[in-house]
Amino acid sequence: MLNGKVLVAQGGGPTAVINQSMVGAVLESRKFPHISKVYGAMHGVEGIMNEDFIDLTQETTNNLELVAKTPSSALLSTRIKPDAKYCAELFKVMKAHDIRYFFYIGGNDSSETLRLLNENAAIANYDFRAVHIPKTIDNDLVENDHTPGYGSAARFVASAFIGANLDNRAMNGVYIGVVMGRHSGFLTAASSIAQKYPGDGPHLIYMPERAFDIDQFVKDVDEVHTRLGRCVIAISEGIVDKDGQPILKALKGELQADEHGNVQLSDNSALGDMLADVIKQKLNIGRVRADTFGYLQRSFMGCVSDVDAREAREVGEKAAQYAMWNDADGSITIKRTGYYSVDFEFVPLERIAGKTRYMPDNFINSTGNGVTDNFKFYLRPLLGAGFQDAHYLRACYAPKLLK
Amino acid sequence: MLNGKVLVAQGGGPTAVINQSMVGAVLESRKFPHISKVYGAMHGVEGIMNEDFIDLTQETTNNLELVAKTPSSALLSTRIKPDAKYCAELFKVMKAHDIRYFFYIGGNDSSETLRLLNENAAIANYDFRAVHIPKTIDNDLVENDHTPGYGSAARFVASAFIGANLDNRAMNGVYIGVVMGRHSGFLTAASSIAQKYPGDGPHLIYMPERAFDIDQFVKDVDEVHTRLGRCVIAISEGIVDKDGQPILKALKGELQADEHGNVQLSDNSALGDMLADVIKQKLNIGRVRADTFGYLQRSFMGCVSDVDAREAREVGEKAAQYAMWNDADGSITIKRTGYYSVDFEFVPLERIAGKTRYMPDNFINSTGNGVTDNFKFYLRPLLGAGFQDAHYLRACYAPKLLK
Repeated sequence: MLNGKVLVAQGGGPTAVINQSMVGAVLESRKFPHISKVYGAMHGVEGIMNEDFIDLTQETTNNLELVAKTPSSALLSTRIKPDAKYCAELFKVMKAHDIRYFFYIGGNDSSETLRLLNENAAIANYDFRAVHIPKTIDNDLVENDHTPGYGSAARFVASAFIGANLDNRAMNGVYIGVVMGRHSGFLTAASSIAQKYPGDGPHLIYMPERAFDIDQFVKDVDEVHTRLGRCVIAISEGIVDKDGQPILKALKGELQADEHGNVQLSDNSALGDMLADVIKQKLNIGRVRADTFGYLQRSFMGCVSDVDAREAREVGEKAAQYAMWNDADGSITIKRTGYYSVDFEFVPLERIAGKTRYMPDNFINSTGNGVTDNFKFYLRPLLGAGFQDAHYLRACYAPKLLK
Repeated sequence: MLNGKVLVAQGGGPTAVINQSMVGAVLESRKFPHISKVYGAMHGVEGIMNEDFIDLTQETTNNLELVAKTPSSALLSTRIKPDAKYCAELFKVMKAHDIRYFFYIGGNDSSETLRLLNENAAIANYDFRAVHIPKTIDNDLVENDHTPGYGSAARFVASAFIGANLDNRAMNGVYIGVVMGRHSGFLTAASSIAQKYPGDGPHLIYMPERAFDIDQFVKDVDEVHTRLGRCVIAISEGIVDKDGQPILKALKGELQADEHGNVQLSDNSALGDMLADVIKQKLNIGRVRADTFGYLQRSFMGCVSDVDAREAREVGEKAAQYAMWNDADGSITIKRTGYYSVDFEFVPLERIAGKTRYMPDNFINSTGNGVTDNFKFYLRPLLGAGFQDAHYLRACYAPKLLK
């Protein structure tokens, strides 16, 4: 064990349970007598650069527990991805503050930052432990069965599509829901939990792991709408065509309306709106609606999976334990050990950094527009307890008297 | 009391608790021995026209209770607004099926339909009771303190803005959330519940009750962003300028990008995206995001106010009681009798039909870009129990050593 300070920081997009991990690492670190202080860096690496540290040894346990239940990074976040030079500066600050343990809660960019910090520590012959605590709603970290943040975001997406299916069933027409996930379809696939009764949507699910073809999409929607008189579609914001090009680019060619437009290619709702326009124009369906779920997915208050919350807490706590008791750097990973049980494993940072995990083939159906039961079996426990599903009337029809 | 059948139907946009009202009316009606059957019309007035009735006397009480907890119209819905001729046809079907009580769950259009049906019944000298059961997430029915459906939708909007404020606080920049409500700002105003700690958003709230001015909007955002380094905005989809013109129309002139475009004026996310573009262009702020909450607001599974659910059940039950025991037509209304208690009043259909309720002046601040404490006092009980709020770290800053 190293005498000195602990520093905790959060990076990248927030999740509903990211503060559980922070509080897990803080409370566990506060137990060790050789730790003089536990600091939190405000706004991630930016806070380190500016020495914006708050002293978490002077925060009450009760308030930490309340913060743990609050979504979105309590230490605030940053989108900066530090290069080698930036990391050298970060290291100088950490050394000046006698920081010996650094716990960084983030995606795979964060693990690369930690790797670079370790290089600086080795050159300076400074005893230092850097530990990566995983978080991402996209569920795209390798070496993990799943990542903290995914279960709660998946619960949001599943709840949204249960509602969207019911709404579409009542009103008819076509509904498109655009879901986050730049490279992996895990979050979009969570929409499949809404499929309960025969005929329930989402009837079509498009994930970035399969090339998206606009003509095939129109055919798919036509088939479902002809059969059921309605269609619910879940689509990932990250869908690309067979050449890896974003679909929005191709759509701009398809839609006359946009030939002279200057529509932004990301960070807005254009993809959903344009796909809705394609359906309206090509299939002549009057009621076509698109919702882009946006930031609601990662920060909505009160949509938390208890399984996700407890695992997020545990990876924070385990990070402190591995660092203190084993004097080791690395990343905490979640391994599934049963249905449903997990354990944690400490893996070298190099095995996580810069890699992306995709949905395995056996989670995606053969036509590339839906998921398999394997995926639903995988997902269900991650949604947590108290997850409600829909119930339909089952009363028989009354005889007609006039027709 | 009249011997014969009861018919229940649902119209207009679904809510999270609309099935509570249906089940309330059905279960109460099933208790009366002079009622031979309780029918449900599928897809509202369309189902009546086609004699698509399901026999709800043949549905289990247990399943009805589960359906009551399921959002979105279980009897399915319709957007048809019947005229006098359509209502004459509806009446013929009802008469053929010996329907003596008709409970229609809907907004103020529904009460107009009921009024027309009553006229037909009077001409035919047919004993008939038509009762309107209120529902609308917009909260825009006159004669009501609030309407079933509003509390749960408000809970969704409040939860979304608690998250949006936390997300924006962590990431900075400008966030715009576009909320449903064509004519009344009640639902948009629910975002104000996210204002807990000093500096919390939404910092600006725009409701249709006040004319929206794009230049003033840009000034408002600039002031907040300069002061706090971030800005969260709640905006109603129904905002109009001082001449009553939709803002999207004015924005098309403002934004060069759209001069040749053919962007749809409603039912998509263009308003939020365009306002975001205005902020980017005029204030040169890099990170500007807009989410249009869309259909999630009215059908999301698992975001229900218990107060809203219980009142929705009660208005259904009271509808049956008023009709049966008082042999009267009318609309059930909710009156606030204390903080917080309500009672129900039966009012003539004419007092509801075709009228829209707006937010009272003392709910809106003097600059027209926020709400008053009066509004928060009005709203809070409607959100129900177990509503969570955010908690921040309050630890002190550590001393800087390098700077």
